[in-house]
Amino acid sequence: MPRRTDSRSRMIHAASELFGQRGYHATAFSDVIEGSGAPRGSIYFHFPGGKHELAQEATALAGDEIEVTVAEAASQATDPASLIRVLAEGMVQRLEASDYKHGCSIATMVLELAPYDEDLTVEFDTVFARWRAALVGCFESWGITTESGVVLADLVMSAFEGALIVSRAARSPEPFWRTVDALVDAVDGNAAFRPAAARRAKARR
Amino acid sequence: MPRRTDSRSRMIHAASELFGQRGYHATAFSDVIEGSGAPRGSIYFHFPGGKHELAQEATALAGDEIEVTVAEAASQATDPASLIRVLAEGMVQRLEASDYKHGCSIATMVLELAPYDEDLTVEFDTVFARWRAALVGCFESWGITTESGVVLADLVMSAFEGALIVSRAARSPEPFWRTVDALVDAVDGNAAFRPAAARRAKARR
Repeated sequence: MPRRTDSRSRMIHAASELFGQRGYHATAFSDVIEGSGAPRGSIYFHFPGGKHELAQEATALAGDEIEVTVAEAASQATDPASLIRVLAEGMVQRLEASDYKHGCSIATMVLELAPYDEDLTVEFDTVFARWRAALVGCFESWGITTESGVVLADLVMSAFEGALIVSRAARSPEPFWRTVDALVDAVDGNAAFRPAAARRAKARR
Repeated sequence: MPRRTDSRSRMIHAASELFGQRGYHATAFSDVIEGSGAPRGSIYFHFPGGKHELAQEATALAGDEIEVTVAEAASQATDPASLIRVLAEGMVQRLEASDYKHGCSIATMVLELAPYDEDLTVEFDTVFARWRAALVGCFESWGITTESGVVLADLVMSAFEGALIVSRAARSPEPFWRTVDALVDAVDGNAAFRPAAARRAKARR
């Protein structure tokens, strides 16, 4: 049944956009139907659990997407600083293309619903855990210790999430880029966050 | 008319809590009345502009509060790293005391309403501008250049805002503290972010 899958997937993608742009409470089923072009009435067929189920699916999608995004960025990066720059480019592109409406797909829901909604809170945490693991995996592949990698991953995730908030309020990429500049400086200035090869080269000098 | 002022101020404080914890859309006037102990019916007397006016006042309050918070923290700090630690202690205290419900008072509204609501978006941006200016003022007083201070201020604000999101989802202060540890390492590792006195001492060694 390819049509069922297509239409369900389109609805999840449309909901993800809306949840990121305005949040859970301001997103009505009618908006999701309009955004996905799905036939009216089909939403309860695909999501018998209603908006809550749609939010769970949109959250799972965010976890899938961030893993792909990090893997793609890693293929163009050689160290944490270049990975941060590549990831930042993609985020700013989305922010600007959406006219400062779309930063992170789940952050709005996290702030509206965590820790009140037990199920969704667990799934939000899973997205951050997947994002963290993807970043730590890259850092480790460059010879950075797991311990340093986890700390750096949390700084990267937090800085990106927060910079998206400040840039949405400013309707400008400037706060985002300033944050990224400081982040890259921070990474370059800290031996624990530099790839093992660079550390060795520096030690030899 | 002290009663009018008291009751109005209590309503703004109650609204600020609720906007931070669940956001703009999920906060009803009845919740604000319940939270503030104000008499039913008084809210339109105090806020003829309705919930929107209440959100503007709560946002202005957030700007006042962050200036006081930074000034108080600065009086206990001697450099950017110690300022970050003191500010972080206060944020984690609020996060834990609220059972992971309360991070930042305006972040939830920013993600729900920026850039859609023109007036509020300007006021959100003003809060971040006041926070940035307060941080840059401290950094400058320690001999850090304005240019470096602005970049560091944006990293600090973004990292705090984002870490509050990740920690709310995790219902744990751990992501927050990991972010702060990385931030402090970052500041210590970068000569531009060190106070002038420390830079001079280091140069003399």
